[in-house]
Amino acid sequence: MTSVIQLEECRERIRKELDTVVDFWLRYSHDPDHGGFFNCIGRDGKVYDDLKYVWLQGRQVWMYCRLYRTVERFHKPEILEAAKAGGAFLRRFARVSGGCGGDWKCAFCLTRDGKPVKIQRTIFSECFYILAMDELSRVTGDTDMQLEANQMMEQLIYWVQEDASGLGRPQLAGDAPTNNMAVPMMLLCLVHQITEGRGPDVVGKYRKLGCWCVQQILQHIQRNGTAILENVSPEGGELPGCKGRLQNPGHALEAGWFLLQFSAEQSDQVLQRTAINKYLELPFQDGWDKEHGGLFYFLDVDKHCPTQLEWNMKLWWPHCEALIAFLMAYKQTKNPELLQRFFQVYEYTFSHFPDCQGGEWFGYLTQEGKVALDFKGGPFKGETSAATQQMQHIFDSCKSVHELE
Amino acid sequence: MTSVIQLEECRERIRKELDTVVDFWLRYSHDPDHGGFFNCIGRDGKVYDDLKYVWLQGRQVWMYCRLYRTVERFHKPEILEAAKAGGAFLRRFARVSGGCGGDWKCAFCLTRDGKPVKIQRTIFSECFYILAMDELSRVTGDTDMQLEANQMMEQLIYWVQEDASGLGRPQLAGDAPTNNMAVPMMLLCLVHQITEGRGPDVVGKYRKLGCWCVQQILQHIQRNGTAILENVSPEGGELPGCKGRLQNPGHALEAGWFLLQFSAEQSDQVLQRTAINKYLELPFQDGWDKEHGGLFYFLDVDKHCPTQLEWNMKLWWPHCEALIAFLMAYKQTKNPELLQRFFQVYEYTFSHFPDCQGGEWFGYLTQEGKVALDFKGGPFKGETSAATQQMQHIFDSCKSVHELE
Repeated sequence: MTSVIQLEECRERIRKELDTVVDFWLRYSHDPDHGGFFNCIGRDGKVYDDLKYVWLQGRQVWMYCRLYRTVERFHKPEILEAAKAGGAFLRRFARVSGGCGGDWKCAFCLTRDGKPVKIQRTIFSECFYILAMDELSRVTGDTDMQLEANQMMEQLIYWVQEDASGLGRPQLAGDAPTNNMAVPMMLLCLVHQITEGRGPDVVGKYRKLGCWCVQQILQHIQRNGTAILENVSPEGGELPGCKGRLQNPGHALEAGWFLLQFSAEQSDQVLQRTAINKYLELPFQDGWDKEHGGLFYFLDVDKHCPTQLEWNMKLWWPHCEALIAFLMAYKQTKNPELLQRFFQVYEYTFSHFPDCQGGEWFGYLTQEGKVALDFKGGPFKGETSAATQQMQHIFDSCKSVHELE
Repeated sequence: MTSVIQLEECRERIRKELDTVVDFWLRYSHDPDHGGFFNCIGRDGKVYDDLKYVWLQGRQVWMYCRLYRTVERFHKPEILEAAKAGGAFLRRFARVSGGCGGDWKCAFCLTRDGKPVKIQRTIFSECFYILAMDELSRVTGDTDMQLEANQMMEQLIYWVQEDASGLGRPQLAGDAPTNNMAVPMMLLCLVHQITEGRGPDVVGKYRKLGCWCVQQILQHIQRNGTAILENVSPEGGELPGCKGRLQNPGHALEAGWFLLQFSAEQSDQVLQRTAINKYLELPFQDGWDKEHGGLFYFLDVDKHCPTQLEWNMKLWWPHCEALIAFLMAYKQTKNPELLQRFFQVYEYTFSHFPDCQGGEWFGYLTQEGKVALDFKGGPFKGETSAATQQMQHIFDSCKSVHELE
């Protein structure tokens, strides 16, 4: 019973947080002159740089549409209009033709008026572009946009499974081919996005890809099942050096809930157990800072010091992924230990990251939990509403929190 | 008189530190199987990754040769042999032909046996390659090696002054052309290396380039002479956004002593005053952490929070640059305020960075001064002997510390 009350409190806090966060971005991030969104927003809501980051542009379009489409109180014209304006900016400017990526490569960063500043030689800008277009087309019914999302998805699959040379990174003799967990994770996320609620033809078309992604993610269970490693060889072996030993607990937890979601769709109980035992428990055990609380950003499986300068910082997003993962796992299993994990992460997260004065969350804390960077939005930090929306969605998918008990 | 005693203590400590540091790298970093040096060395001297970073390979060759050539107690065959082995590894493997950089582009990172892992689209690997080859050829008398250094220097000048497309970075419409201070600084450092002690033909050949570098560095004095900014436009104007407002106090202090060195060679007192007032005083005033001591890594001139996650960390190298800068400035001017600055930085540096147990220095502290990353060598941290050697050189260039008084 105590946990029901606690859960109800969490649900209410998350609901309020979602309102505050959405309000923050509606108020401060829109660019009426050039379309799209400002991403670099200071503690007080002021724009400190007008560069536009394609990951974050895509996420914000996706978020607005998702909220508009699935949460009644956000089904408002200003949210739809903002999403459309963001989508139009992306369609007009994000794709940079002329390089070796053909017509499909997207920039990583654009000027305020849409000129490309930087192109990453990875697939992630394109992933967020697809997320935005698929979700926006669901709201607007724009079939042309839908088609574009599907076509770009085909290009991504080609880059990942057939030939990555179009991404522009030269293949070097000493650069060992790598299965980086981010790639199958993002593709699995896209499979979920593109197939959700769609007919059996679409679901069928992407089933094989989904299974391939899961198999690629499962290759990251290493050291006789005792650790999740970020980078493995394409054959699923451990890679040498720091790269091979790298752990990113938040990322593993995120993979965990992607797998949980997939296991629920496929009614795959073996996968569900693997997701919980390997992708939730192991990174939580290894990644939780026993001295100061919170999840480390990077670790080395052999306890060497990571070479990333920010390894011991506490970032908002691993905590969001952990909250979603443990809440989802608890919902699926009703195992009270998983609920306790959720409460433990919840306690740290909500006492450290939200800015009760200015709204939104701080993104980056020191190991000891002090705010180290006080902006609300930056090159890699956008709105925290995706995570709160996801948690609210889990709560809302039950009639009441009693159903979670 | 007090300051003479203090200076003598500093000199003695620096002398001992140099011995310990050189001993550390002689003991732990040599690769007898493949040549070259291990760079990733843990707190206890163990190699935790066998990748070889070209910047650090080049610096270590340079360092060994410099010590062999200029400091009597290091004029030992094992140091010369180690330098030669490092030089042979670099010559055999660092240059990666076949890309758009022709035959002159160097890798950033190599496997233990010399296969390229990563190429940066900048000039810095090449700069360290030239430093190594020029210094090694001075010791060995290898004219072929000397020629190679000079030819690569010509290629660098072409990339910097004529056409950077050979470096492989696509020119994007939104990516404003930039004078990044690192580029003229590194070129000025190379001019000093290549011309030092050489005849009037060589000195004359590079005089114009040296003046061009100085003029490019001076463009970074901004905000009516009140701030040094890392990135400016090619015309010397301020750039918009975070990139334009970025400050790197350690880097500005390093530029400061490069300018001081140049001003001494040219007997240019105006430049000397500018170096001290702008490149030493301003970054020291802005960059010194009044609460915890030490120099911040990055700052924003308008006091926004930098977006670099490590902005508030204390790194070993800005403190080394500050020590060299203030000692050199004091030696040139005998202004006691500059000596006090030296003592202030010295006190922080020597009480925080050296590892009295294991030898060598820690490289990365939290804002509060706690060791955050405990390795002695990593992808960007090599031996700290270059700085101690430089300081010893300043001391040794006087007959006694009394001459500094």
